[in-house]
Amino acid sequence: MTNKTELPACPVETTLMLIGDKWKVLILRDLRSGTKRFGELKKSVTGISQKVLTSNLRDMEGNGILTREVFPEVPPRVEYTLTELGHSMMPILDAMERWGINYKKREAV
Amino acid sequence: MTNKTELPACPVETTLMLIGDKWKVLILRDLRSGTKRFGELKKSVTGISQKVLTSNLRDMEGNGILTREVFPEVPPRVEYTLTELGHSMMPILDAMERWGINYKKREAV
Repeated sequence: MTNKTELPACPVETTLMLIGDKWKVLILRDLRSGTKRFGELKKSVTGISQKVLTSNLRDMEGNGILTREVFPEVPPRVEYTLTELGHSMMPILDAMERWGINYKKREAV
Repeated sequence: MTNKTELPACPVETTLMLIGDKWKVLILRDLRSGTKRFGELKKSVTGISQKVLTSNLRDMEGNGILTREVFPEVPPRVEYTLTELGHSMMPILDAMERWGINYKKREAV
């Protein structure tokens, strides 16, 4: 968990410390609809490598954005779920989505 | 300028294509209040190198987010200004700012 003394003065920078990476935003997007397994995320976050996905999921778990649950099956099932903190980021995704929709309309003219 | 046929189906990904980088978000933040010179941006976007700043400004100019104006002085003055498209991204920054403010309050408890 990030310590408050390490947080930048600017709130935009604070947010970027946690999701200042396109992969993290795409992981947020894909967990929005509910819990997903590692393999499902690997497919839905197009273009991400296993290593980068693991590293981003670990960061996000460390920052309290998502939880990781391991089910002792063979092979083990690992599931990721957004926390309340993760869900509180949805207005940022909504703003990005609206902007993207408008941009696509504009480019289509 | 990005061609519409290259745009990803997901509008969030479309937005990330243009500002999926923390430096670009910080440049947007710093040009929000008005035109800035290269040297001013170099100072306000803390930690960015000259090379990375130049490359990000070039991308953003190419995508129509900002304009670059060179004044033939000695030494030449180079100024950057957000376009209307750049300003249309402000709701994303507002959402990031609000989230950062709330997160800082929460962490301070």
